Amino acid sequence: MSTNETLALDAAAQDLLFREAHTVSAFTDEPVSDEQIQAIYDLVKYAPTAFNQQPLRVVLVRTPEARELLVGHLMDGNKAKTSAAPLTAILVADNEFHEELPTQFPAFPGAKDAFFSERSVREGSARLNGALQAAYFLVGVRAAGLAAGPMTGFDAEGINKEFFPEGDHSVLLVVNIGKPAAEDAWFPRGPRLAYDEVVTTV
Amino acid sequence: MSTNETLALDAAAQDLLFREAHTVSAFTDEPVSDEQIQAIYDLVKYAPTAFNQQPLRVVLVRTPEARELLVGHLMDGNKAKTSAAPLTAILVADNEFHEELPTQFPAFPGAKDAFFSERSVREGSARLNGALQAAYFLVGVRAAGLAAGPMTGFDAEGINKEFFPEGDHSVLLVVNIGKPAAEDAWFPRGPRLAYDEVVTTV
Repeated sequence: MSTNETLALDAAAQDLLFREAHTVSAFTDEPVSDEQIQAIYDLVKYAPTAFNQQPLRVVLVRTPEARELLVGHLMDGNKAKTSAAPLTAILVADNEFHEELPTQFPAFPGAKDAFFSERSVREGSARLNGALQAAYFLVGVRAAGLAAGPMTGFDAEGINKEFFPEGDHSVLLVVNIGKPAAEDAWFPRGPRLAYDEVVTTV
Repeated sequence: MSTNETLALDAAAQDLLFREAHTVSAFTDEPVSDEQIQAIYDLVKYAPTAFNQQPLRVVLVRTPEARELLVGHLMDGNKAKTSAAPLTAILVADNEFHEELPTQFPAFPGAKDAFFSERSVREGSARLNGALQAAYFLVGVRAAGLAAGPMTGFDAEGINKEFFPEGDHSVLLVVNIGKPAAEDAWFPRGPRLAYDEVVTTV
């Protein structure tokens, strides 16, 4: 796949993050360490959110008991691959992110009350900005030389109650993480919409 | 800022995309070409969405008339910088993405009707996956050697009606794009949550 020289990003990085990366459903047994996840977070944490609200929270599912509970809330097609993945992360939006704004958005200490006193507003903002951060995280997994298998096929309410009985969190994605298996790690890449189907000018 | 050697992504790319990148509010006059936007799209289009649904649509605001209309729907704090930016893009979710699924998700031609017949389901899915793609797009702007100034401070309903009188679209972000001005291009970077405030293990 040819690399576009209009870009400032070098060709190897284009391949690593986008052109040669795939959503992976079968992984090797190689573990994913906390140090790798910390390196990913320490890279992607700099990407922007509105009011620097940073609503994303990540739960690493490492015990067999927690994995079994999670798998019970997944759609059938996602169970086996998640049971076998080296690591699975639950990516959620913290709908109480506003509690951190006085320290995280010092430019306007009143933002917490001025904009985010209503729970419905917080939920919408956390979902949008949490999804932005979820995407940065997926890019970060690839930046660590790992592959991601993001999923949306699950019982969201069940996961929210099971893993967040306290507080107010909304699950966004469940992501398997690891090194791609030697064979059949991914499905053939699907088509992509053409530029002029996506981008218009006014 | 030190680069983490646990990552596979090279240090220059880490800096370009994350560590040395900033949300920019003041730009040079250098124009942003359609070729640059096409190069960005042709990179980030490969990043994943659920069912390969690709709900993101991008409207490039190039005429003075369209810019004035857009600025009229922005919060006051976003008006001047958007009026002065070399290029502004409106990023929206197409709530009728399911019409493309028969060609875009050939693995399961029935997905359109099996999962997305309800408008409310489509809207939620388009908003989540559109936000993932909006984040990929912001990373892509940086990959092109440009800076992004994403904004959520606008009258969403007003923009939806003004720019999408037909079809069913929901605005996600408005993004100024260009080269950072020589002085005062960005505000000092805010803090970031610590790893153990964001990531937990079960």
